[in-house]
Amino acid sequence: MIDVLIEKIKKTNAPIVVGLDPMLSYIPGHIQKKAFAEYGETLAGAAEAVWQYNKGLVDAVCDLIPAVKPQVAMYEQFGLEGMKAFARTVAYCKEKGLVVIGDVKRGDIGSTSEAYAVGHLGKVKVGSNAYYGFDEDFVTVNPYLGSDGVAPFIKVCKEEKRGIFVLVKTSNPSSGEFQDRLIDGKPLYELVGEKVALWGEECMGASYSYVGAVVGATYPEQGKLLRKVMPKTFILVPGYGAQGGKGADLAHFFNEDGLGAIISSSRGIIAAYKQEKYASYGEEGYADAARAAVIDMREDIAGALA
Amino acid sequence: MIDVLIEKIKKTNAPIVVGLDPMLSYIPGHIQKKAFAEYGETLAGAAEAVWQYNKGLVDAVCDLIPAVKPQVAMYEQFGLEGMKAFARTVAYCKEKGLVVIGDVKRGDIGSTSEAYAVGHLGKVKVGSNAYYGFDEDFVTVNPYLGSDGVAPFIKVCKEEKRGIFVLVKTSNPSSGEFQDRLIDGKPLYELVGEKVALWGEECMGASYSYVGAVVGATYPEQGKLLRKVMPKTFILVPGYGAQGGKGADLAHFFNEDGLGAIISSSRGIIAAYKQEKYASYGEEGYADAARAAVIDMREDIAGALA
Repeated sequence: MIDVLIEKIKKTNAPIVVGLDPMLSYIPGHIQKKAFAEYGETLAGAAEAVWQYNKGLVDAVCDLIPAVKPQVAMYEQFGLEGMKAFARTVAYCKEKGLVVIGDVKRGDIGSTSEAYAVGHLGKVKVGSNAYYGFDEDFVTVNPYLGSDGVAPFIKVCKEEKRGIFVLVKTSNPSSGEFQDRLIDGKPLYELVGEKVALWGEECMGASYSYVGAVVGATYPEQGKLLRKVMPKTFILVPGYGAQGGKGADLAHFFNEDGLGAIISSSRGIIAAYKQEKYASYGEEGYADAARAAVIDMREDIAGALA
Repeated sequence: MIDVLIEKIKKTNAPIVVGLDPMLSYIPGHIQKKAFAEYGETLAGAAEAVWQYNKGLVDAVCDLIPAVKPQVAMYEQFGLEGMKAFARTVAYCKEKGLVVIGDVKRGDIGSTSEAYAVGHLGKVKVGSNAYYGFDEDFVTVNPYLGSDGVAPFIKVCKEEKRGIFVLVKTSNPSSGEFQDRLIDGKPLYELVGEKVALWGEECMGASYSYVGAVVGATYPEQGKLLRKVMPKTFILVPGYGAQGGKGADLAHFFNEDGLGAIISSSRGIIAAYKQEKYASYGEEGYADAARAAVIDMREDIAGALA
């Protein structure tokens, strides 16, 4: 799947993943109104609004980008109805030819990690049958529990030719609280990065591993270091745009082949219509505003890499 | 909710939480057969088997214990149908007067952590209404992202008088890979423990905080240290029984008031009928075997604390 992702990045010339993180406050009034008219101001109504919003976004940008990254928390908050909207979004994005990175940040031990891996990336056995659960192409994984928490994900990735992105250095302000602490002179994120590189060796695609890493755009210097520590690791880079990461900072996350990273933007794309720059599209034109924001982001990144 | 948990522990004289981690391989043949006859060998069939299995267990042990800990991964692996069984299990356990600790190990940043917190512990706003999502009393939280990943959970806990257990030192063999690494002479888990104690100060119940910690029974020496580092923190202790933690090791996790810890057992209780010791119950008697195993566990812990 890493090879498919890379091929799509080359084809679209856009190392961009759009974060489908549908907060209700982002969803235009007309979509909410219609959903609530049909289902009431209920969890089902919220889930319908989320789904219609996503569908509009995906239809507007799917030819421009290789991948989407639905953030499961934004669906999980609406309980079962939200999870239905998540599953529906994943399926629709795949139908539209997009690679789906489930931003689930799961991580546990042994058989429990295996259950997560199976539920999101693989097939679960039921009697003599086997079924996909949520069926993403990649998921994000939390490394705090160590190798035996990550190994079950890697096992399923090998079977299914799918992949993971392991949290190494996250984009948030307090990520340094534990991740930056020095251990034998090296920050924890570097040790985690070294492990990610090691884990990745056993599941290589053509030029990059199925085991990727998450490194925040808000920490370009750390990105520069980690790029060297994990040369064959694809890096998922959140924090561009709304969180403060700038195009010029992104070059560090790429290799000399112009590959090796995919930049994520959520709010900056899906709620672009709320920015002054795209205000002329109006709420009704939220999807076109998102399309314009993707095109601008593509140029910003191309400029940074030139 | 921590006060409710403590009251129930005192009442049952059992600082025990039963892990409802229903692997299909644990579920007796007669339950699977009946569920598959009704729904086929499908995800819905698996979810029905999980639900019936859980119901039998809960009915058999609910008067003996204060709390249950459903491991969401074991439900999530069956996709939406599995999540329905999770929600149904949570609701049923609460109906039976049990405190429900959702073992979800979630953790993200800012608004995303808030969405998880709202979805599992709080109410999500939809128009002028507000709804509980999965509605647990406590959840487990991963600290790798630092304070701003945990703060949104604490905010919701304060509003709802619910709680969290933050992963500090996990029970698995490779937990030391990152958690044991020394930072300024102290292992990472101790730094995390110090933060947990600090976070907990702002949300105290009568004698313990709403912000608890997870420390594995398999690491009693570390438990002893962490007990001192986090004197007012309730410790959720997994790894007893099947993972190798022994009753005698458990004393370290408790305070002198005889409180401060709750010991989790999953396989050792819910699949007790597979052990030689309880084999006489047979598959059909799996729930009675679980009851017997709870009673034995209660004695084992009482012995350790005596």
